[in-house]
Amino acid sequence: MYQIITKKKRGLELTKEEIYKVVDGYTRGSIPDYQMSALLMAICLKGMSNDETANLTMAMAESGDMLDLSHINNITADKHSTGGVGDKTSLIIGPIVAANGVAVAKMSGRGLGHTGGTIDKLESICGFQTEISEEEFTDIVNSVGIAIVGQSAQLAPADKKLYALRDVTATVDNVSLIASSIMSKKLAAGSQVIVLDVKTGSGAFMKELADSKKLAEIMVHIGKTAGRKMYALITDMNQPLGNYVGNKLEVYEAVKILKGQGPEDLLDASLYLSALILCGAGKVNNIDEGYLLAKKTIECGAALEKFKEFVNAQHGDPDFVNDIENFCKLNRYIEVKADKDGYVNKIDTEAIGMASMYLGGGRATKDDIIDPDVGLYVSKKLGDKVSVGDTMVKLYISEKSDADKAIRTIKNAYLISDDVSAGANSHVYGYYDENSYHDLLK
Amino acid sequence: MYQIITKKKRGLELTKEEIYKVVDGYTRGSIPDYQMSALLMAICLKGMSNDETANLTMAMAESGDMLDLSHINNITADKHSTGGVGDKTSLIIGPIVAANGVAVAKMSGRGLGHTGGTIDKLESICGFQTEISEEEFTDIVNSVGIAIVGQSAQLAPADKKLYALRDVTATVDNVSLIASSIMSKKLAAGSQVIVLDVKTGSGAFMKELADSKKLAEIMVHIGKTAGRKMYALITDMNQPLGNYVGNKLEVYEAVKILKGQGPEDLLDASLYLSALILCGAGKVNNIDEGYLLAKKTIECGAALEKFKEFVNAQHGDPDFVNDIENFCKLNRYIEVKADKDGYVNKIDTEAIGMASMYLGGGRATKDDIIDPDVGLYVSKKLGDKVSVGDTMVKLYISEKSDADKAIRTIKNAYLISDDVSAGANSHVYGYYDENSYHDLLK
Repeated sequence: MYQIITKKKRGLELTKEEIYKVVDGYTRGSIPDYQMSALLMAICLKGMSNDETANLTMAMAESGDMLDLSHINNITADKHSTGGVGDKTSLIIGPIVAANGVAVAKMSGRGLGHTGGTIDKLESICGFQTEISEEEFTDIVNSVGIAIVGQSAQLAPADKKLYALRDVTATVDNVSLIASSIMSKKLAAGSQVIVLDVKTGSGAFMKELADSKKLAEIMVHIGKTAGRKMYALITDMNQPLGNYVGNKLEVYEAVKILKGQGPEDLLDASLYLSALILCGAGKVNNIDEGYLLAKKTIECGAALEKFKEFVNAQHGDPDFVNDIENFCKLNRYIEVKADKDGYVNKIDTEAIGMASMYLGGGRATKDDIIDPDVGLYVSKKLGDKVSVGDTMVKLYISEKSDADKAIRTIKNAYLISDDVSAGANSHVYGYYDENSYHDLLK
Repeated sequence: MYQIITKKKRGLELTKEEIYKVVDGYTRGSIPDYQMSALLMAICLKGMSNDETANLTMAMAESGDMLDLSHINNITADKHSTGGVGDKTSLIIGPIVAANGVAVAKMSGRGLGHTGGTIDKLESICGFQTEISEEEFTDIVNSVGIAIVGQSAQLAPADKKLYALRDVTATVDNVSLIASSIMSKKLAAGSQVIVLDVKTGSGAFMKELADSKKLAEIMVHIGKTAGRKMYALITDMNQPLGNYVGNKLEVYEAVKILKGQGPEDLLDASLYLSALILCGAGKVNNIDEGYLLAKKTIECGAALEKFKEFVNAQHGDPDFVNDIENFCKLNRYIEVKADKDGYVNKIDTEAIGMASMYLGGGRATKDDIIDPDVGLYVSKKLGDKVSVGDTMVKLYISEKSDADKAIRTIKNAYLISDDVSAGANSHVYGYYDENSYHDLLK
């Protein structure tokens, strides 16, 4: 290990054998934390090649269970977002592609910090079970076409242990380490088609477009090396996606989209992500055909129907879909109002996510308990005209919410100015397939 | 700590407060090894400013006992070598300067790896005690002018803990970390005048002259910042200093020097180091005066007399000095002979030190027991003409010596060629005072 640390410290490339030795030794405990953290810091400061990153990813993927999806009849697909605010696309995309014969056998996470988690959102549906047996999981995927469960502890345990160490040693923000952490879990989860939603902007982990593109490119390379069909869409996170942030509130908005009534940015991102999955699964010939097919799947009601089947199969009560306006019991709210005239020029999106957390909709630490009902409605988005007294954000609160902190945070998050240009930003920048980048800016 | 690691990772300068927090927290155990090793790696790759290095040194020096030498009547001086092969100058310099009214209250270390230690050498003298009480230590310094004891465990405990971590995380070879490790112990040991002997070459920790000069400069800066009178001499370690390597053998050679009979390189280095101490203590006006005074102190027999007083005070039997040729009982030896004609062009000096270790004269690990009698005589030095069959090195062995390994090591250590130029290298390059570098190359 000493020699391996020295090698990386000098900026040299580690062999596949060396990387497997490190990951195996660290997972089993024969390499101590203090050697691993020295190596992680050297990696942060000296970087890793694409081959090293791919080897690290495979070593971590193989450190625990590798899911066997071979008894699933259809082609399997997975989608992963690098984390944003108001991102409820999994709830929309899953039903769309499942309705088109793609099997979605998905493991999702819980929310932490300013980002939400699909598992938390699903659990806000009455009766919905996210912990089901492997057999039932496979049965649901085969019969309904989609199942979403919490991530198994046996999936990429090396990543879990490494991530915990990175988290306390300031070695999180390296593109190779981020890419391998995400992709090790995705590869272990077994799907044949993997579509990544790489967020960029003030609410994303990667604030700069160039960094997001770099991360997307590396992850596509890793997945391709491992024999998976890969795409990565670059989407904007300079403002929340859609208008709602919270758990029940996001399920509400996702259902509205499936009913053809949701906001355009959320719809558009969902359609592009669906389109890439449909491409990867060979259901369409190109992204445009995929986009149109996804759109039609919503318009004809098939996606909504699939969503209800999915909720029902995982022991949730799908009836709420039929009476969606009464799904959220929102009797207490506070309106945060504009105190100047102008246009919304910037939104600190991470701060919006934190505000939702202060209300009780997210977790400061893993052990916090969330309140599925609270959250917020973002009324004014980038480029919108505002006048003094207009509601910018509506907070749905409980008696446990730290509403004052949320209000302060929201007020600081908005920059109102005379500049009208911000609204021109697109919410979808482009995508990587296995060969190159394709611009989607209009 | 997370923020401090992040700051250093970005190449920013840490404040005095931050550095003290790190050292204090790590020494007390509130900062775990894995965070410290991440910071150490960031320091290795991003460096530290001179101010940061000085603060780190003071924080480590203050982490344990700070020796109080105030009840010592004369001005106190200490000498430290960065470690070499055949370096027995402490045994020569101490008596020289003590004979001139400078108090040498010195803590020394034991040998490890290819380098020897003054404590081991002194213990090869019959009866010599290196563990004496603090009171006795002070009494001897006040009455005789010189006492040398083993390093207390309470001296700079932060350095001890940090060094152990650096040793297993590939974070040893950074000039700021090396400088602070050495100087923290020297500052804690309390002397007013500190003269450093920074070795450079194949047997030194720093193989390149530029690195050695950089290390010397930083250490002088640290000591000056802490209010000490500082000098650093840069001396050659491309071959062993003098001709003998071992413990008893080095005492033998030191006594020969004190009797005016030793090799010129060892004499010259000892006189320069003594000269700098005499300068620092205000006994002479400049290095040339110091050099001459030191030389005279040997010639008149005062240094040898002081050496005997010193040995006697620390419970050793000084009579061996009078019968020095019978001090070493060298009945078993092997001669390593030249197998080609030419000139000694290079000596891998670290390998010579290792050969002495294989014979039993040094330690591979801290817990090894050394044999004071074994060692070697280096007959052929840089630039010397050799013919096939000439003795290059004479090994003094015991039945426990790994003589075969030592012979192989010695043979590989010598480069014999037609090039006659190697002998021209000086053994003393120059010195730093608190203002600048002064060249001593002739």
